[in-house]
Amino acid sequence: MYQVNDNYQKLPGSYLFSNIAKKVQAYTAANPDKNVIRLGIGDVTQPLAPAIIEAMHRAVDEMASAETFHGYAPDLGYEFLRKAIAENDYAARGCDIAADEIFVSDGAKSDSANIQELFSVNNKIAVCDPVYPVYVDSNVMAGRTGTYDPATEMWSNVIYMPCTRENDFVPEFPKETPDIIYLCLPNNPTGTTITKARLQEWVDYANRSGALIIYDGAYEAYISEEDVAHSIYECQGAKTCAIELKSFSKNAGFTGVRLGYAVVPKELKCGEISLRDMWARRHGTKFNGAPYIIQRAGEAVYSNEGKAQLKQQVAYYMRNASTIKEGLKDAGYEVYGGVNAPYIWLKTPENMSSWDFFDFLLEKANVVGTPGSGFGPSGEGYFRLTAFGSYENTVAALERIKAL
Amino acid sequence: MYQVNDNYQKLPGSYLFSNIAKKVQAYTAANPDKNVIRLGIGDVTQPLAPAIIEAMHRAVDEMASAETFHGYAPDLGYEFLRKAIAENDYAARGCDIAADEIFVSDGAKSDSANIQELFSVNNKIAVCDPVYPVYVDSNVMAGRTGTYDPATEMWSNVIYMPCTRENDFVPEFPKETPDIIYLCLPNNPTGTTITKARLQEWVDYANRSGALIIYDGAYEAYISEEDVAHSIYECQGAKTCAIELKSFSKNAGFTGVRLGYAVVPKELKCGEISLRDMWARRHGTKFNGAPYIIQRAGEAVYSNEGKAQLKQQVAYYMRNASTIKEGLKDAGYEVYGGVNAPYIWLKTPENMSSWDFFDFLLEKANVVGTPGSGFGPSGEGYFRLTAFGSYENTVAALERIKAL
Repeated sequence: MYQVNDNYQKLPGSYLFSNIAKKVQAYTAANPDKNVIRLGIGDVTQPLAPAIIEAMHRAVDEMASAETFHGYAPDLGYEFLRKAIAENDYAARGCDIAADEIFVSDGAKSDSANIQELFSVNNKIAVCDPVYPVYVDSNVMAGRTGTYDPATEMWSNVIYMPCTRENDFVPEFPKETPDIIYLCLPNNPTGTTITKARLQEWVDYANRSGALIIYDGAYEAYISEEDVAHSIYECQGAKTCAIELKSFSKNAGFTGVRLGYAVVPKELKCGEISLRDMWARRHGTKFNGAPYIIQRAGEAVYSNEGKAQLKQQVAYYMRNASTIKEGLKDAGYEVYGGVNAPYIWLKTPENMSSWDFFDFLLEKANVVGTPGSGFGPSGEGYFRLTAFGSYENTVAALERIKAL
Repeated sequence: MYQVNDNYQKLPGSYLFSNIAKKVQAYTAANPDKNVIRLGIGDVTQPLAPAIIEAMHRAVDEMASAETFHGYAPDLGYEFLRKAIAENDYAARGCDIAADEIFVSDGAKSDSANIQELFSVNNKIAVCDPVYPVYVDSNVMAGRTGTYDPATEMWSNVIYMPCTRENDFVPEFPKETPDIIYLCLPNNPTGTTITKARLQEWVDYANRSGALIIYDGAYEAYISEEDVAHSIYECQGAKTCAIELKSFSKNAGFTGVRLGYAVVPKELKCGEISLRDMWARRHGTKFNGAPYIIQRAGEAVYSNEGKAQLKQQVAYYMRNASTIKEGLKDAGYEVYGGVNAPYIWLKTPENMSSWDFFDFLLEKANVVGTPGSGFGPSGEGYFRLTAFGSYENTVAALERIKAL
């Protein structure tokens, strides 16, 4: 008689963004006349850049002829893409990452959920609080997190690193040494980040304590300040303690295109065991590559035209970020983030709970955001707005919020 | 100090098809003048059907404009695709499967590797021997298979169901009752299958014994005989004991396009726990959907033009299957499969080992096949050839084999 993986039953409720989608669906069904503006889930709205569209049309045409048809992709991804990544995202920044340390995937969400498989179920993870829910939920499913306390909304076997007003929303070294540390910088959901000097301290801490850092750099394209690292491998010693995950969703608008990559350096070893070889084994066994057409789209991100077009796209969203931030300030809100990241983190007014503010904003302004408490207990009383709407919607949303 | 998942270290060697790729790469590098014909890995060679190409071009164009751009997909996949699947693959065959029991994925390899996550690590699996390596390897990684004995090439905690000449290469009920049974029918690698009446006996066995069947129907499009089921849900009671996995790789040539789906019926429950809801939770947490463009390609598979074009494509490959089977027979080989599946399973001549025959065929005929022993100990002394080459290459390969 088969039995289920009991760990799934420990998960409270469903995935945050599925919950929000259901709430919004119910509201719009009941109020079909309302023009709801979505600044909730981090989904982009601008169309794909022309260089990417052209690359995909070409790749589709290749699939139409036996001579240029592409079947199964190489295990790690096509070399044309891995080389472009190595050159542009690493060599150009002085980081020595080889193409065979890069693993192309269907997105950073999958990678950030799957990467924990490489580690012992007895390992203890540390996460920022608030945090992207996938890190914790994937570890719950693997049985690594202990029991859930509904009162505190915390897991007994997870080390939380609160990111609050008091520490400018950036994590501090935890009292208890973790085995695995998840860092997302620039941060989702708070939109804050740390300097390269401070990141170096995290790398030193990890190497000293034998911890492994899973570094989620999904928002790297939004970095505007000079002293912020674009890759953890800009820090000395990161190759012996860090895996980096990158996404094309936010720099190139690939949320519906699905492409990402993981970097697992050859120097990264647990005793004699190469984590790179383990990840290669997982990739070869449990995954069959991102589509050829999509990998060609990824390559176009690094073309001269692609780079120029995407620079404009990022600037477009960052104008939204600034519009939200300044607009909220004008309306008397306390706001954070939005400088090196497309997220604005605001304190709810009058000590409203995050979900109360979600309902308030949805019903009174018809604006969808994300409740801070959905990202962890220290997110309670906060709220995330994203810069990924259209400029017109962003301006309209802010007018509505100001009028409340 | 972090530690790795020890189960990975138990895996002997690397993934079968990665091994073959390395061997072929080494041979072609050393013999650049040789024209190697690949009938090894089950990769297709015919271009995508025109209806699919057109659908993809249209979808790419949609991504170029803000009004028709698509970001994150719905958790289960787009409804247009799930509805087309429900109608064509199920309702048309008298199976009552709802669109919200269908989960669109990036392919059946991912699904067949990930599905085991839903079950207790204490569950015992049963697999055919020989078998598609992903079923066993994904369970090794999860720690469900016990220890590996290099002498027998078997895992201590796996129930093997030998498929040999003696039983016409179809599995028999194992002596020990398993918790989870993997069935791939029509079968990879042997190319054989069972009748609907016999499949009904498996469903009854599973319901009686409390076992769960993971039914891999990747080769369903190649069924040519009337008494073979196209879905396990054609059998009475399958909805309470079976998950079905389907692929677009073989019926539509999507090996490099990446699309598949899993069916987890609502009636499928372990006590009170809905496996459908568990899979929905996994899908929402660890995956972010197949690309919009690719889901539109999948929809085109079910259009009238798509169906007509793909019927021709399947017929093209089945002509290859017949060419291989008859050619091998003429050359004195003992051959199986190739009637309801694109695979031909042959007995190696003169009791050669599978890998010896691999080397022999590569070096003497410059033809790549797959060693039967790579699929399990009962595959030793057998060899798989696939019908997925071009007709010209298939004919040429057979000429070379006949001339040996």
